[in-house]
Amino acid sequence: MNESNPITAAIRSSEREQRNGHSGRIVWLTGLSGAGKSTLAVALERRLFDEGWQVCVLDGDIVRIGLCGDLGFSAEDRTENIRRIGEVARLMAGAGLAVIVAFISPFRADRERVRAGMPAGRFTEVFVNAPLEICEQRDPKGLYAKARGGELTDFTGISSPYEPPESPEVIVPTDQLSVDESVERIWAIVT
Amino acid sequence: MNESNPITAAIRSSEREQRNGHSGRIVWLTGLSGAGKSTLAVALERRLFDEGWQVCVLDGDIVRIGLCGDLGFSAEDRTENIRRIGEVARLMAGAGLAVIVAFISPFRADRERVRAGMPAGRFTEVFVNAPLEICEQRDPKGLYAKARGGELTDFTGISSPYEPPESPEVIVPTDQLSVDESVERIWAIVT
Repeated sequence: MNESNPITAAIRSSEREQRNGHSGRIVWLTGLSGAGKSTLAVALERRLFDEGWQVCVLDGDIVRIGLCGDLGFSAEDRTENIRRIGEVARLMAGAGLAVIVAFISPFRADRERVRAGMPAGRFTEVFVNAPLEICEQRDPKGLYAKARGGELTDFTGISSPYEPPESPEVIVPTDQLSVDESVERIWAIVT
Repeated sequence: MNESNPITAAIRSSEREQRNGHSGRIVWLTGLSGAGKSTLAVALERRLFDEGWQVCVLDGDIVRIGLCGDLGFSAEDRTENIRRIGEVARLMAGAGLAVIVAFISPFRADRERVRAGMPAGRFTEVFVNAPLEICEQRDPKGLYAKARGGELTDFTGISSPYEPPESPEVIVPTDQLSVDESVERIWAIVT
């Protein structure tokens, strides 16, 4: 084997796009805990899959067990967390997938860094927006109660800041829209 | 939106398999620097893509810039490097892709940990095997020269150990086989 040849034979993006019928891209759902990111991610994945797309979800709760299992919730660790997720999403998008990322991702700069690493139009920021009071009422994982009780520190919205997107491609007010309506709103922008 | 519903609607692996015509899996190429991993990875990717597969390559040189940009080449960092790559490959395989990983990945335990995280039959270990002397003669990136000159420390095969697989699914002696012959040997096992 001749190792001195430069590697030029990788699959071109256009070949993947032609086969899949869509380009690789990232759909990034950001918002408070309890805003509905995971629910929406799964519903959107189903919608895109049924349309024939190559699609997957990167969910914070899952990724934090594996890839980011060494990281905590300090501001520094959150930034590193988003950096890694962004890299993984970028690799997956490069493989032709539509990658739906569902992460609180509270810091604007971290999200913008991921966007900057993607070709224009291949990063869709979705602000999953529900008022803190609503999220706290829902409290699907009982985390707000723990944060209020002091059991959890650095909790976004309570003891750690959330920086809403300044110009997201889509805003989904999940206290006003059903899951289906929310998915349709994203679908209209992504496709 | 009702956040209290458990998430059960994710795409099943069987749905992805049915659409893609193959299951998600990892094909892990391990071997010395210069053994031919990257060359083989790209040739195998092309072969699988042309057969209609959803396939991508995770290459050490690329991933070390991004996802693992914070890691060096100490034994500890190599282990963390492989842990992260393994997690990413697992996520990608979960999305239905055949993921070709091209990494020196010198430590047996690190590779076995990745295997253990995959369903049976979904991890194919390929020992890309060329004698150290040959790899050093090829030295496509000039790294052996630097390692011998003391410019590079912790260099696998010179100043850091390489633990060959004990029972890899495939062995490819790249000093004896052409790229095409090597790809065919892997293809016969993977499919």
